[in-house]
Amino acid sequence: MASVDHDVQDRTLAAAGLRRIDEAARSLPVLAAVRAHLAAERPLEGIRVSACLELDARTAVLARTLRDAGATVVLCGADPRSTCDATAAALVDEGIGVFAVAGEDDATFLAHLAASVDQRPHLLLDDGGDLIGLAHASRRELLDTAIAGIEDGRAGVERLREMEADGVLALPVLAVGEAQTRHLVDHRYGTGQAALDGVLRLVDPLIAGSTVVVLGYGWSGRGIAERARGMGAQVVVTEVDPLRALQAAMDGFRVAPIMDAARIGALFVTATGAVDVLRPEHMAEMRDGVVLANAGHGGFEIDVPGLHAAAVEESDTQPLVRTFTMADGRRIDLLAEGRPVGRMAGGAPAVVRDVGLATQALAAVYAVAHADSLGNVVYAVPPAIDEEVARRALQAVGVAIDGQPDGGAGPRPDEA
Amino acid sequence: MASVDHDVQDRTLAAAGLRRIDEAARSLPVLAAVRAHLAAERPLEGIRVSACLELDARTAVLARTLRDAGATVVLCGADPRSTCDATAAALVDEGIGVFAVAGEDDATFLAHLAASVDQRPHLLLDDGGDLIGLAHASRRELLDTAIAGIEDGRAGVERLREMEADGVLALPVLAVGEAQTRHLVDHRYGTGQAALDGVLRLVDPLIAGSTVVVLGYGWSGRGIAERARGMGAQVVVTEVDPLRALQAAMDGFRVAPIMDAARIGALFVTATGAVDVLRPEHMAEMRDGVVLANAGHGGFEIDVPGLHAAAVEESDTQPLVRTFTMADGRRIDLLAEGRPVGRMAGGAPAVVRDVGLATQALAAVYAVAHADSLGNVVYAVPPAIDEEVARRALQAVGVAIDGQPDGGAGPRPDEA
Amino acid sequence: MASVDHDVQDRTLAAAGLRRIDEAARSLPVLAAVRAHLAAERPLEGIRVSACLELDARTAVLARTLRDAGATVVLCGADPRSTCDATAAALVDEGIGVFAVAGEDDATFLAHLAASVDQRPHLLLDDGGDLIGLAHASRRELLDTAIAGIEDGRAGVERLREMEADGVLALPVLAVGEAQTRHLVDHRYGTGQAALDGVLRLVDPLIAGSTVVVLGYGWSGRGIAERARGMGAQVVVTEVDPLRALQAAMDGFRVAPIMDAARIGALFVTATGAVDVLRPEHMAEMRDGVVLANAGHGGFEIDVPGLHAAAVEESDTQPLVRTFTMADGRRIDLLAEGRPVGRMAGGAPAVVRDVGLATQALAAVYAVAHADSLGNVVYAVPPAIDEEVARRALQAVGVAIDGQPDGGAGPRPDEA
Amino acid sequence: MASVDHDVQDRTLAAAGLRRIDEAARSLPVLAAVRAHLAAERPLEGIRVSACLELDARTAVLARTLRDAGATVVLCGADPRSTCDATAAALVDEGIGVFAVAGEDDATFLAHLAASVDQRPHLLLDDGGDLIGLAHASRRELLDTAIAGIEDGRAGVERLREMEADGVLALPVLAVGEAQTRHLVDHRYGTGQAALDGVLRLVDPLIAGSTVVVLGYGWSGRGIAERARGMGAQVVVTEVDPLRALQAAMDGFRVAPIMDAARIGALFVTATGAVDVLRPEHMAEMRDGVVLANAGHGGFEIDVPGLHAAAVEESDTQPLVRTFTMADGRRIDLLAEGRPVGRMAGGAPAVVRDVGLATQALAAVYAVAHADSLGNVVYAVPPAIDEEVARRALQAVGVAIDGQPDGGAGPRPDEA
Repeated sequence: MASVDHDVQDRTLAAAGLRRIDEAARSLPVLAAVRAHLAAERPLEGIRVSACLELDARTAVLARTLRDAGATVVLCGADPRSTCDATAAALVDEGIGVFAVAGEDDATFLAHLAASVDQRPHLLLDDGGDLIGLAHASRRELLDTAIAGIEDGRAGVERLREMEADGVLALPVLAVGEAQTRHLVDHRYGTGQAALDGVLRLVDPLIAGSTVVVLGYGWSGRGIAERARGMGAQVVVTEVDPLRALQAAMDGFRVAPIMDAARIGALFVTATGAVDVLRPEHMAEMRDGVVLANAGHGGFEIDVPGLHAAAVEESDTQPLVRTFTMADGRRIDLLAEGRPVGRMAGGAPAVVRDVGLATQALAAVYAVAHADSLGNVVYAVPPAIDEEVARRALQAVGVAIDGQPDGGAGPRPDEA
Repeated sequence: MASVDHDVQDRTLAAAGLRRIDEAARSLPVLAAVRAHLAAERPLEGIRVSACLELDARTAVLARTLRDAGATVVLCGADPRSTCDATAAALVDEGIGVFAVAGEDDATFLAHLAASVDQRPHLLLDDGGDLIGLAHASRRELLDTAIAGIEDGRAGVERLREMEADGVLALPVLAVGEAQTRHLVDHRYGTGQAALDGVLRLVDPLIAGSTVVVLGYGWSGRGIAERARGMGAQVVVTEVDPLRALQAAMDGFRVAPIMDAARIGALFVTATGAVDVLRPEHMAEMRDGVVLANAGHGGFEIDVPGLHAAAVEESDTQPLVRTFTMADGRRIDLLAEGRPVGRMAGGAPAVVRDVGLATQALAAVYAVAHADSLGNVVYAVPPAIDEEVARRALQAVGVAIDGQPDGGAGPRPDEA
Repeated sequence: MASVDHDVQDRTLAAAGLRRIDEAARSLPVLAAVRAHLAAERPLEGIRVSACLELDARTAVLARTLRDAGATVVLCGADPRSTCDATAAALVDEGIGVFAVAGEDDATFLAHLAASVDQRPHLLLDDGGDLIGLAHASRRELLDTAIAGIEDGRAGVERLREMEADGVLALPVLAVGEAQTRHLVDHRYGTGQAALDGVLRLVDPLIAGSTVVVLGYGWSGRGIAERARGMGAQVVVTEVDPLRALQAAMDGFRVAPIMDAARIGALFVTATGAVDVLRPEHMAEMRDGVVLANAGHGGFEIDVPGLHAAAVEESDTQPLVRTFTMADGRRIDLLAEGRPVGRMAGGAPAVVRDVGLATQALAAVYAVAHADSLGNVVYAVPPAIDEEVARRALQAVGVAIDGQPDGGAGPRPDEA
Repeated sequence: MASVDHDVQDRTLAAAGLRRIDEAARSLPVLAAVRAHLAAERPLEGIRVSACLELDARTAVLARTLRDAGATVVLCGADPRSTCDATAAALVDEGIGVFAVAGEDDATFLAHLAASVDQRPHLLLDDGGDLIGLAHASRRELLDTAIAGIEDGRAGVERLREMEADGVLALPVLAVGEAQTRHLVDHRYGTGQAALDGVLRLVDPLIAGSTVVVLGYGWSGRGIAERARGMGAQVVVTEVDPLRALQAAMDGFRVAPIMDAARIGALFVTATGAVDVLRPEHMAEMRDGVVLANAGHGGFEIDVPGLHAAAVEESDTQPLVRTFTMADGRRIDLLAEGRPVGRMAGGAPAVVRDVGLATQALAAVYAVAHADSLGNVVYAVPPAIDEEVARRALQAVGVAIDGQPDGGAGPRPDEA
């Protein structure tokens, strides 16, 4: 196999990519441990894997891991803006097929997507549903050879569940985007840190002593609220779900309706998953100089059109910060156009990706091992995988724990 | 109906009981709100309820609530040690049947249990499975008229699930002992507070600056660990489940194997649900003067026989504190014989019972309303009940929240 | 020397006292380390110490420590209600003079106080100023032989400072009641824990989810606020000092005027040191069922007379809990008559006393060593003593730290 | 007065500067409130102020404030790298003298410094001691007209205290760099946030679940430790001062000697004020991939030369991140060459400057009002100024508090 897009003569580019992948490998100890194990066992011998993922140096380490486990791997890049050509060049050198060019246009992307499945893959690794969607649409012959799809994105998983509910899902899918470790490491702690980090990088408030309103108390909201409190904020939580609201209250947070919170907050962070949670009627009550940011994985929690309509003047006071002036002179800063502020402006700690990539690798192995028993269903990640990833993540930070008496998953007697 | 056991002439006793029930009613605002609602709707008109519960003033408010909802109510006392004769006398005056005497012996208890179901109840309210067990054993004719059982105890629920798994459950059961609000208010926050409260009342350490080892990071363990940290302890968590261990680590706790924790802890609190978690091999490593307490709902997490065997000397240094001297002179204090230290020595905040009693009342109404569709299954408490209880619990502490857009349970998009 | 008050024949009593003192000694590791050191050095050889302190088993260990350091020690009991006759009997057996009988009347107390100084002491150990006061009033000849006074109480220290300001202090005094370790271990962490502990023992609220108002953000207020938050409360702080209020706000607490706080709190704890902080005008705004407690070391922060006047009905609903019913039916629970709730109803962790007693012993040694250079001034405890106590307190909980480069007190470069 | 350095014809530059100053003014509400007050009172009428400060838009708002209070103001730029020419141009337009050009060389800086005092100022505002130093060296005639110096930097204050101790200080100085509000807002909360912020921007670790070692538990160390814990880290504190170590332990932190901490940490942050706290012998024990950062206001807490000597390989893996490879293959990342990581890479929240600038303005007014009573001493900022700044800082975040009974500074009865 060979890439048509990359100049394999470009030794310099490939060498730079190799250094980048090696550097990334050092930052992914969980995946490294999985890779060592799979390289010894080779459970993917003879398996063809096609993957449509963000094509960066970290994904490259996953590709290496799958290859070392025995698979033939072909990649295309799920987001042309984040495709790294040097990484692609280096991967080709390592015998991994790549169809991706940084910044490619839609037509090229689609051609690459199609090319990536010409090998008639056993496994489809997806982040956003492009490959699995293709197999359900114009390339249904792929469903004959495919063992399973593995979906890394939360929105992708949601769409696949709808397909299952509608009776049109024609492939088993493992929902790695909703693994327990993902909820913990990514949605709660990762998003909690990245969202506030993004806010600090953009507008730099002193969190201590300020009033931070967190809308929504799910995995992400909890993470944000805890971290804001840990930085000295007075945190106000809004929730429409009474059980979550009760938990927030018993966790010591002030809980209030949005309208009441609107009057006292200095920074508002949405994490509800719902649409237009923060609306003009709330904005009308806010103090001068407030900051609005969204941390939910969609970009729709703040009513941005409503804000445009309500303002008498707007300007980009700095990159990703748009300042709206209201008729009464109050100003409101909107961060990152309401898109996820952590992803747009915050950091992306390696451990978050490490846990995700390791889960993808183990899910691939699981799907192959259980090919015969899988139905056309969206499966949660099996507890054994979550536990293996958690165990290796603990080892990576130097934490030892006792073994379980029976060597198995163990009871969780104390929790529903 | 009349009680054979209570002297209805004893006006003084009944008057004292009435004061106690009225006082209890003031401390149960959630149940009061439910009662007001049910008294207006009377959804239990014509329903016969038999209940085997701890017979104290708070349970009496539940009995009143069910009566005001239209039911005929007969009570016996699940734990003769906690039966309050004054309360019983007052209830009889209010037209509620009572078969219970404080401190009654086993034979009397069984006679009372039997008498309580002579009315052929539609609903069996249980705390520990005595009534439902009777219906499955010697009084199977009760299964003909019974609509459902409602089990308040966690151990009781576990046994009923085993019966269901074994195919012998012959009655629908609502597991109010495992309601979400119960997990939150009781298992996490209630147990978290009561366990440390019990330790303080018995041995009175300064928590700030001390090392507290919490074994287990389920609902209760988390509550204890958070509260100990909140009081200034350095907390070490032990867990055999890697996911929970990872969560503990990411919550900022030091996580270690038990043997390592044994060497540094000053206070050890078990909350695992497992047997003999803290064993002589650990005790051999502990520092002089450590304190051992159990917060799990069984009394078996500390290997007490092993401790007896390892000690060269023992004495009760004060009530519920037994001091064991080891061969090397080190001393270990065992609290409450390893039984749940919060229940034995800590407080019992009214709100914990309030939430539980309100859930029982609403579960009774639900069972009657859905009598036709219930199978012989142990049902989780329906979300709508959990949400109603949570909403009323928030109102009771003065917290308002926004309504859900569709008036229903609403999505929980951010959480698995 | 012999006690006229204790029957030295009473072997049983003395034996019980001895066991109690030995038990107390085990609970005071900091004092034990100091005692071991002083017993080897004997820096108080030939020194006569008279002490008027709470005469319990822990004080007895201090008396032993001073004796082992070479001193001749005579004790009387500062608070006849807390005098322990068994301890007194045992001390007499150990060659320590005791003039104290449990429950003695005022005349007997005064006679005992006088008798305790008949030895013409070099050092006066006081808790509340009785001995030092006597030396300034009717027994001024004591000032000729006395090297210094050592005052353990905060109120006592305040009075002595007034005497110094008025130019009437005729003796050097070391203010151990205001040592840095005392502020930390006792006022902040000890009071913080004991105050909430007292509230829990009396009225048993679930702290999680409740709104706790802490009035005052000094050492004690901070300790209470932190601990209440650590138990899951939403904490509101009131302060009149803008700097402390700013610190509270930046520590993440909601800060508000008392009147605003009065409307939302469920539990109010005063720790201001000021008089009548919580007044009828605030009580008029409170919700039904609120609880009022004082944690300040005086008993005057809640306007109790005002509360009596405002109520239409009162009753002691349980020991130390008085329930006031207002004209509009609202009820207010006052704990411990407004006296310090931690001291009246909470625990008294051994480490708090341990640190205090060790400081007294070291202050005695310091006074003797520096007899020539002391003026008639109230001296703060020298940093070297605070540091030695802190170092030994760390050792007692198993914490090692690095030594200071120059072996001395070391710079504190980061703090004013 | 006119600037010789700025082209006053450059309208565009001045207009940009004006916008920047106006924008800065919006971000400084505390200073704005002070300015409004002083503009009405004009307490600096006839006073000449020369200032050598960082010449940015925020300092410009201070200059305006002093001018509006009645003063004649001349500025030079304390750090040519941070001088903003647009701001300078705008200030000249407003009648404020400016001698500063961005990036000017040392000779120019010295010429500008000299020019700034040609007006024979009554007040010298300094940040680092250049102006006050000049007055003590080659321009001693300035001491005749000067009322006081006002020093904003901590290192500057330390040098002035040494001058006072050496008996060479010839001018009263107000140490605004050590105001109480500065300790709180800047050193504790500001540095706490900025240091972690800097680390995140440079190497982006997930703080949750990681072990963060904080060296030193002064104002800054406490702020960093609290914030790291609040973000989910397990925090280990090292201290040589036993009192601070005890406080850290009672605040719930794990306390250890540096060598023990070196073996378990993932991120090390120094905040001791001492030299070479983190040395090669510690680095030899560290895990692979650790990160070293300094948050102390000097750049000398990490033994950087020692690290260079111990490494076999070094490279700048990204800006301000230098990766050292040790002989055994372990890698250590040093941030910002050991210089203050918050200042080099973190944010600078406006409120920190706001509080500092307001204190400078009020200190200037105080010095003039008390000119007759000031000696040649380094004075702490008077409590009344700290309180006014704190009160206005609370107002700026919408927090109201009760007034003090006597309208004065009020007692702080609970604290030493």
